[in-house]
Amino acid sequence: MNKGNSKILSPWYTTRLKVRYQETDQMAVVYHANYLTWFELGRTGMIAELGFTYREMEEQGILLPVIDAHLKYRQPAHYDDMIVVFTRMTTFSTLRLEYEYEVRRLEKDRILERTCWHANEELPGDLLVTGSTQHVWIGPDWKPVRLDKTAPKLYNALKEKLYEAI
Amino acid sequence: MNKGNSKILSPWYTTRLKVRYQETDQMAVVYHANYLTWFELGRTGMIAELGFTYREMEEQGILLPVIDAHLKYRQPAHYDDMIVVFTRMTTFSTLRLEYEYEVRRLEKDRILERTCWHANEELPGDLLVTGSTQHVWIGPDWKPVRLDKTAPKLYNALKEKLYEAI
Amino acid sequence: MNKGNSKILSPWYTTRLKVRYQETDQMAVVYHANYLTWFELGRTGMIAELGFTYREMEEQGILLPVIDAHLKYRQPAHYDDMIVVFTRMTTFSTLRLEYEYEVRRLEKDRILERTCWHANEELPGDLLVTGSTQHVWIGPDWKPVRLDKTAPKLYNALKEKLYEAI
Amino acid sequence: MNKGNSKILSPWYTTRLKVRYQETDQMAVVYHANYLTWFELGRTGMIAELGFTYREMEEQGILLPVIDAHLKYRQPAHYDDMIVVFTRMTTFSTLRLEYEYEVRRLEKDRILERTCWHANEELPGDLLVTGSTQHVWIGPDWKPVRLDKTAPKLYNALKEKLYEAI
Repeated sequence: MNKGNSKILSPWYTTRLKVRYQETDQMAVVYHANYLTWFELGRTGMIAELGFTYREMEEQGILLPVIDAHLKYRQPAHYDDMIVVFTRMTTFSTLRLEYEYEVRRLEKDRILERTCWHANEELPGDLLVTGSTQHVWIGPDWKPVRLDKTAPKLYNALKEKLYEAI
Repeated sequence: MNKGNSKILSPWYTTRLKVRYQETDQMAVVYHANYLTWFELGRTGMIAELGFTYREMEEQGILLPVIDAHLKYRQPAHYDDMIVVFTRMTTFSTLRLEYEYEVRRLEKDRILERTCWHANEELPGDLLVTGSTQHVWIGPDWKPVRLDKTAPKLYNALKEKLYEAI
Repeated sequence: MNKGNSKILSPWYTTRLKVRYQETDQMAVVYHANYLTWFELGRTGMIAELGFTYREMEEQGILLPVIDAHLKYRQPAHYDDMIVVFTRMTTFSTLRLEYEYEVRRLEKDRILERTCWHANEELPGDLLVTGSTQHVWIGPDWKPVRLDKTAPKLYNALKEKLYEAI
Repeated sequence: MNKGNSKILSPWYTTRLKVRYQETDQMAVVYHANYLTWFELGRTGMIAELGFTYREMEEQGILLPVIDAHLKYRQPAHYDDMIVVFTRMTTFSTLRLEYEYEVRRLEKDRILERTCWHANEELPGDLLVTGSTQHVWIGPDWKPVRLDKTAPKLYNALKEKLYEAI
């Protein structure tokens, strides 16, 4: 997969959480840095849904640090809100990944009947924060690696799962 | 000050900190969300340098939430590193503010002889993370306010200080 | 209820969580302060199980800050571990509350068939951290209040639910 | 040094910090778990004052996790408060350490003329939180080690410095 065709558009995957007291600040809203942590829960949840875990990747010596992040805050989340982080992958290559996120608030006790939403569907809940992150595959020495060389099984399995999902 | 001339370019102000153990993660680097907290320390430090405090602003019923944030990660910070957050204002209007940041690592025991650097000067230390944030002035009801109407003394004092600094 | 009979021993209630990357530190274990946040999730979960929420209490002007906390660390939790916080109330009076906690690790995919365990039952999972917290009922001015005077409905409802559970 | 004479009483060492916005919660006070982070800053600061760093200890393969913590909350800290963490060592042996802490608020712009206070002196500032932590020396495999065997130079240097200070 060369850089030219690394753009993809996966479905939206969902990760739910409830706002913790610790995550609020004295404006009585969620402190703005916590959305980056929630983005991480979103991409971890998506990868788990595809059958992988970051934990196993790290145990294989593959790290995936953030190299770029963007957040747009529309409405604040509050303590005890029921939140869903919608996450999709927009770039997948041997060198890097990109994700997009929509953090949305659900009504109390709202049940999501699905874990996956397609790109052209309207997402449920109130939109609070949108954003994106970029990542590179690196080794334990923090040097970039080509995933297809370093962990070909992981690369092929991920690729297959992603293309299946699309 | 109308929207047309709200672009400014203040000097860089400096805020120092030492990396806390709590800020590291299991990649043995600073967890990426903490840089947003450090940006906040940077703009708080800059405002303090100009003679104001966020605390007093909030006591006057003026809040200044983040509506947009961007971060670019170049090199990781490590535990116990001596960090300096360079912060400057790039937009100042009756409705909004924008800041830019450079997070840099200093050599151990390096003393910064100044608190202020001009736009065309080379900044000291290793560049780790750059970024920017946008903010709006709001009231206790989270509705936007015009700072010159709601808190004219604060607005004029801030404006004067900023233009003096430039 | 006078101080003399404020000692109770509720069943253990359960709250589940998965360890977040943000919660790890460079020893590759959960940073020790996070267990206090998890204790909070435990007591919030217990109160919710009884039919109340901290959010509603706060909206009624009743705050319940921690005045004392104790933690004993036996084994560290790791990233992605499936955790259950067992929480029980050991003091309930018009002036104060006390809780006890056991943080335990479950095997991956282990399902807990119940939300409630009795005092003499063996709890599932590996014991990681134990602890306790004490709290006082206060008003918006941070002065202590007697819950039966300030919020008699809440007091009676909580008391009834607790005694039903025992 | 056998267990019998491991009790010591070092002077109080001081570490200063300013309360971060991120550390507040929606009660408009510092979230209670942050005091454990501040205790860590206190003991790190004390060790640095004695001429050592946790960073170097960890680079030698010596870890010092918390096995027990106790906190007593008397008054809340607020955003932008000037805080000083007084820290002293109360146990030092080849197997373990214990520290005590007093978190105190200073008046704005109060200068502390000394870094060290003796046990019988009155400490400056308003007392907010007191506490203690216990630690064990462990190796990279998380097994306990005897510091005098594993890192005799560090052990002797620390011991000498501590006894000099007393």
